[in-house]
Amino acid sequence: MYLIIVYDIKVERVNKVKSFLRQYLYWIQNSVFEGEATKSEYNLIASGLNDIININEDSIIIYKLRLEEAMQREILGIEKSPIEGIL
Amino acid sequence: MYLIIVYDIKVERVNKVKSFLRQYLYWIQNSVFEGEATKSEYNLIASGLNDIININEDSIIIYKLRLEEAMQREILGIEKSPIEGIL
Repeated sequence: MYLIIVYDIKVERVNKVKSFLRQYLYWIQNSVFEGEATKSEYNLIASGLNDIININEDSIIIYKLRLEEAMQREILGIEKSPIEGIL
Repeated sequence: MYLIIVYDIKVERVNKVKSFLRQYLYWIQNSVFEGEATKSEYNLIASGLNDIININEDSIIIYKLRLEEAMQREILGIEKSPIEGIL
């Protein structure tokens, strides 16, 4: 599956979330990661994030697509980490 | 089409971006809007955002899906504005 993860995390935990997600996905905007994941990787990601965050203060949305091709990406302004360049 | 818009905007312009996007979409996380849009609404949104942002300092990613059903949404922690409640 293809994941887009957007987060709004209190400053004291945000670096922990970033380092964790970097193990699995690409960092493509300040609070956005993207990438391909298997079902078992997805489970590791979701449970790892649940362990890190404070559910009363932080918010994470995980969008799951069957395939990256299910969406088109349009970027306005700065392209922080051009994912097309990596792939 | 269904849009997911994530942004990283300098503080001096972020409220302008928010008020603009509120005209068309739902605010669902600090820097994330979502919603259905026609092709012509999409064009208005993209050109309106281009007018507001500084392309050297701000970054916006627009994910376009054919249908909302093309993705599944998983929320961890705070659900800022429960979109299911609105629809």
